[in-house]
Amino acid sequence: MGSSFGKNISLSIFGESHGPSIGLVLEGLPAGFRPDWRLVDAFLQRRAPGRGELATPRREADSIEILSGVKEGVLCGTPFAAIIRNTNVRREDYQRLNDIPRPGHSDYTSWVKYGPAAERSGGGHASGRLTAPLCLAGALCLQILAEQGIAVGSHIERIGQAEDRRFSPLQVNPADFAALLSRPLPVLDEAAGDEMAWQIAAAAAAGDSLGGVVECAVTGLPAGLGDPIFDGMENRISQLIFAIPAVKGVEFGNGFAAAGLTGSANNDDFIIAAGQIRTAANRHGGILGGITSGMPLIFRAAFKPTPSIAKEQGSVSLSRREQVRLQVEGRHDPCIVPRALPCVEAAAAIAVYDAWLEQKKYL
Amino acid sequence: MGSSFGKNISLSIFGESHGPSIGLVLEGLPAGFRPDWRLVDAFLQRRAPGRGELATPRREADSIEILSGVKEGVLCGTPFAAIIRNTNVRREDYQRLNDIPRPGHSDYTSWVKYGPAAERSGGGHASGRLTAPLCLAGALCLQILAEQGIAVGSHIERIGQAEDRRFSPLQVNPADFAALLSRPLPVLDEAAGDEMAWQIAAAAAAGDSLGGVVECAVTGLPAGLGDPIFDGMENRISQLIFAIPAVKGVEFGNGFAAAGLTGSANNDDFIIAAGQIRTAANRHGGILGGITSGMPLIFRAAFKPTPSIAKEQGSVSLSRREQVRLQVEGRHDPCIVPRALPCVEAAAAIAVYDAWLEQKKYL
Amino acid sequence: MGSSFGKNISLSIFGESHGPSIGLVLEGLPAGFRPDWRLVDAFLQRRAPGRGELATPRREADSIEILSGVKEGVLCGTPFAAIIRNTNVRREDYQRLNDIPRPGHSDYTSWVKYGPAAERSGGGHASGRLTAPLCLAGALCLQILAEQGIAVGSHIERIGQAEDRRFSPLQVNPADFAALLSRPLPVLDEAAGDEMAWQIAAAAAAGDSLGGVVECAVTGLPAGLGDPIFDGMENRISQLIFAIPAVKGVEFGNGFAAAGLTGSANNDDFIIAAGQIRTAANRHGGILGGITSGMPLIFRAAFKPTPSIAKEQGSVSLSRREQVRLQVEGRHDPCIVPRALPCVEAAAAIAVYDAWLEQKKYL
Amino acid sequence: MGSSFGKNISLSIFGESHGPSIGLVLEGLPAGFRPDWRLVDAFLQRRAPGRGELATPRREADSIEILSGVKEGVLCGTPFAAIIRNTNVRREDYQRLNDIPRPGHSDYTSWVKYGPAAERSGGGHASGRLTAPLCLAGALCLQILAEQGIAVGSHIERIGQAEDRRFSPLQVNPADFAALLSRPLPVLDEAAGDEMAWQIAAAAAAGDSLGGVVECAVTGLPAGLGDPIFDGMENRISQLIFAIPAVKGVEFGNGFAAAGLTGSANNDDFIIAAGQIRTAANRHGGILGGITSGMPLIFRAAFKPTPSIAKEQGSVSLSRREQVRLQVEGRHDPCIVPRALPCVEAAAAIAVYDAWLEQKKYL
Repeated sequence: MGSSFGKNISLSIFGESHGPSIGLVLEGLPAGFRPDWRLVDAFLQRRAPGRGELATPRREADSIEILSGVKEGVLCGTPFAAIIRNTNVRREDYQRLNDIPRPGHSDYTSWVKYGPAAERSGGGHASGRLTAPLCLAGALCLQILAEQGIAVGSHIERIGQAEDRRFSPLQVNPADFAALLSRPLPVLDEAAGDEMAWQIAAAAAAGDSLGGVVECAVTGLPAGLGDPIFDGMENRISQLIFAIPAVKGVEFGNGFAAAGLTGSANNDDFIIAAGQIRTAANRHGGILGGITSGMPLIFRAAFKPTPSIAKEQGSVSLSRREQVRLQVEGRHDPCIVPRALPCVEAAAAIAVYDAWLEQKKYL
Repeated sequence: MGSSFGKNISLSIFGESHGPSIGLVLEGLPAGFRPDWRLVDAFLQRRAPGRGELATPRREADSIEILSGVKEGVLCGTPFAAIIRNTNVRREDYQRLNDIPRPGHSDYTSWVKYGPAAERSGGGHASGRLTAPLCLAGALCLQILAEQGIAVGSHIERIGQAEDRRFSPLQVNPADFAALLSRPLPVLDEAAGDEMAWQIAAAAAAGDSLGGVVECAVTGLPAGLGDPIFDGMENRISQLIFAIPAVKGVEFGNGFAAAGLTGSANNDDFIIAAGQIRTAANRHGGILGGITSGMPLIFRAAFKPTPSIAKEQGSVSLSRREQVRLQVEGRHDPCIVPRALPCVEAAAAIAVYDAWLEQKKYL
Repeated sequence: MGSSFGKNISLSIFGESHGPSIGLVLEGLPAGFRPDWRLVDAFLQRRAPGRGELATPRREADSIEILSGVKEGVLCGTPFAAIIRNTNVRREDYQRLNDIPRPGHSDYTSWVKYGPAAERSGGGHASGRLTAPLCLAGALCLQILAEQGIAVGSHIERIGQAEDRRFSPLQVNPADFAALLSRPLPVLDEAAGDEMAWQIAAAAAAGDSLGGVVECAVTGLPAGLGDPIFDGMENRISQLIFAIPAVKGVEFGNGFAAAGLTGSANNDDFIIAAGQIRTAANRHGGILGGITSGMPLIFRAAFKPTPSIAKEQGSVSLSRREQVRLQVEGRHDPCIVPRALPCVEAAAAIAVYDAWLEQKKYL
Repeated sequence: MGSSFGKNISLSIFGESHGPSIGLVLEGLPAGFRPDWRLVDAFLQRRAPGRGELATPRREADSIEILSGVKEGVLCGTPFAAIIRNTNVRREDYQRLNDIPRPGHSDYTSWVKYGPAAERSGGGHASGRLTAPLCLAGALCLQILAEQGIAVGSHIERIGQAEDRRFSPLQVNPADFAALLSRPLPVLDEAAGDEMAWQIAAAAAAGDSLGGVVECAVTGLPAGLGDPIFDGMENRISQLIFAIPAVKGVEFGNGFAAAGLTGSANNDDFIIAAGQIRTAANRHGGILGGITSGMPLIFRAAFKPTPSIAKEQGSVSLSRREQVRLQVEGRHDPCIVPRALPCVEAAAAIAVYDAWLEQKKYL
């Protein structure tokens, strides 16, 4: 039982990648708010499969069907529920996988956990497809936060061996976020994007896949959000970010690099700038003691390479308990990272929205 | 409101570093279990301040006073509550900090969040001292897990520029864990430990501090623990690990390095070994889809350098709203990492115990 | 935000009575369990509107559409999600109510809480119609409990001035439950049922309505379920029973009558019967200290009369802030009680299932 | 695991009646609030044992020791933790009870649930003594609510066969609450109080005990508090009220009496009074659809007679599995009801405070 999140919101995600539909229930949205549903849809399309030549040929319309909580486009304050139909399921692709778990996937662990009931899976509930409802929840939170002047954006920092430069942590700007979306790959340095595209194409040609790193920033945050000990901003964001199946690491501000620095090199002096208390640098990533400092919140998430590859791999037959060779056939992204950006932004937005509601209780 | 954790347990941590006491309430422990209280105490002593020449001279007995849930040494099944008295508070060290927040600390963010009420702080509730109750909770979970053959251990992978080798992820062994504890610094490669000690001493002499990385392993785990989407093992562990104040990053298995690999280089083939389904390598760190695979669970946590340093730094006067120079005087560890190991192990143990209880509901 | 329940299960209910659909997400069901879906449907039909001449003429098919968590009829262990379409909404009936709240209804309080967004309501989210997903959740829990020998049944103890006799608390028997369902009204004493039917018909003829009391019993419970202080069986059941909109009181065992007795008249001696520890009487209703005693669990829920009546009543125009006369037109039950029985049983079953899962963690 | 409550607050209660101490952790209180600690103490004294000739001779100072969350009398915003020492434990009184459960008590059910670990009990964790921390939590919530103009009061409506009149639900007034506290027993009609005192004395003389009913009112509530479906005001209050061990029933407004009325007799017309929307009567007890209507919130809780009586009763020896006669010796109230009033008020205050915080998130 792990498909619910939130203390100030209640988000339940349901569905299996190859069942009839996936969806969510999200409670804690404000009555009377009118989302821009075209923006919601545009946000979901960034994640949807089958966009562009670098992605999986499995194309899903990913249009949402609202079940409750909305009247004439306006939020009612009651639970928002919506589904996305799985329209393009080719179950035969996954049939064989029931007995032969794919390396790097949750096929085997789901089988242990759920038994024969996990057969439907093809990744099942622990599937990347379930990030669609996460994005839908995030899209709504993003719009509510936008009214508070809070913006969330992300870029690809790395794919394989190709690296983009990082956000400038003192000067990251919401205007940059829009620019990122206009590029073939959302990168700050377009040359890096070309290199990434080349590497993805090469991996695809080799029947292989690539991982990467996404860097995400939240701007316009007031100081004071986040609730130590267990619901600080890092705790909240990381609990959500690991809901994206391929994520294997997360770091805030200087992150792992801070481990190699001295205190004097890593601490950020406080200064007065334009009458405001700020920090001279932003190695702390906008979070001190789990609480926002008012500086841009910066974090990075590491994605492993897509485990489904065309190359032959070693696996076992669960029924015969013997080693076999496996060639995964389905339709898979050679690199999930470009489609993962809205998921990362959604995780950040949901975490921030939950913390923001908490703070409102004491105003 | 963020001081509670758990779905199958309920852990509440309370206290401020410079108040009268810190403590916890932990519900969800089995009635009739008799902890080895000397082991509990020994575990807490690994975290306690003032041990060894590399640590803070602030010495606290850190002996626990049990308030409820135990009779004649045996757990009653009712909530376990205990406190640790703060016996060695020198509040004057922290007086000045009320107006001048220390760079890298939560002084400023706590002041924004709690207002003048945060004055007691000196780090306050978001303080490293609050990891003592976390360790106490972890010590109890560890002993319950030990009865299931589950063991948790950790070593220092890095301090400053000095690096230990890593756990061999296929062969990490509980016997190693005990050996680690017998060394001056818990490292696999003793030469690395000498180098670390030297670097810490040099930083201390310079009035500076160092960060580091802790690598933690959990062995003996059955496959099938962990609950996607939001309570997978990575989600649970990371929500707990970021309860340790200085942590700025966490990664599982190959972690960030996986972002630079191809799928064929990062996937772990399934094999049959001694009649069991295993993986040929363990780059996945024992977790697939948020669920344990039966392989050792491996993760690393990055600690920033202790923010309290003797070197002069820039800060601001909150009352006068002007920039000032600050020299932090109190008593502080030049490197928190050696004392952080039991905290990391505690976080892992609590996460695993919570997941294990969840799984028992369906057996 | 109040539409989620459960510590060991996670139940989210969504929808509005006059929106497109109502539904639920229920996590915590066992993988591999095959519900008898005809029994699920039969259980829902007991609650569905439009059954029999005593009920509302609004007829809904109330057939469920499963969205996730089931494959080939078997539970997957992943969240179970399902909806029921609102097929027979006559919104015009409710249009006028937007400005003139019905006495005894949540129209006014919803309007204060949610503002104009509550307009959709006609009772909205706080509507009796939302007990359909509650019943669906209960129907599944009932079947899982049945495998443990636990049964839940109920009868109408009172409607208006007509009273049935009570369950004999020592001898209540699952076989009785089936018999109750075969009668026009589920009563123990058929003459009482005839009187109730007559009273309902008389109230309907007068454009009025009636309330009543439902008595519910749970048999086959092991001793030891229930978790003081806040999750004892009474706490759990009452939190769920008040999710049924018209309930205004709940009592366990002797309930309010115990307030007029002496301890010697209300205490139940322990005895040994057939080698088992039992109580000589069952005035405690099967719960002592919040924990089941192994005796039948007995409670009663009081239902107010349906607030929607044809008789003219006084109300106010919200827009004009003046008093007006109101005649409610829609289609309404003269007495909701007969349809409330499965809701009460569902509440009991969900509470017991949640407590039973909790107990399994320590076996 | 049931000792935690709250969605917007987190309240954990710990301790056993005959262990070293009992206490609580309460998170969600506002930083900077300065409680009147004498009022807190006075509130606790209303519940404390050994006050007056009608009560148990077991006298406990019940003075609180604050562990965290307060500095110089002011709330810090961090978790408030406090304990009350059990200073007057005569364990020998309870020794014999370990093998012979007292009728009407949780001795037997605790023994089944917790096994030999429950021996400490004498009622243990499911003991009336644990209402002291509940009252402490309530005392703090009451003071915060008082700043909003919200007041909570209660009187004894019945003890044994002696009945007080009820609050006038339209005119209940905070000023009445203070008057109640000045009387020997808190009743509206002093003659009823005399009769109650006589009945209690008579029961005590007979080695017997009496139950009763407490009526509680909350005034000054804004309309709009409470969160259907599972966190409406009735759900919240009842989940808390059943945390008081002897409660066996709860009803709101007309409660069980509504079951015998017609809709036209039970509905409350809306009116305009002094420019405000009000109801003409208040049979709904201030709650419609789980949400406050702005009218006084009224409910009643039924208490069973104290199960510990001097009269000989039948029980069993758990070890020998045979029937025995039991005479309970300890020190017990012949009627717990007078001391229960602050517990009922505390439950109401905590429920309202939790709902009020929820509402603030959307202002």
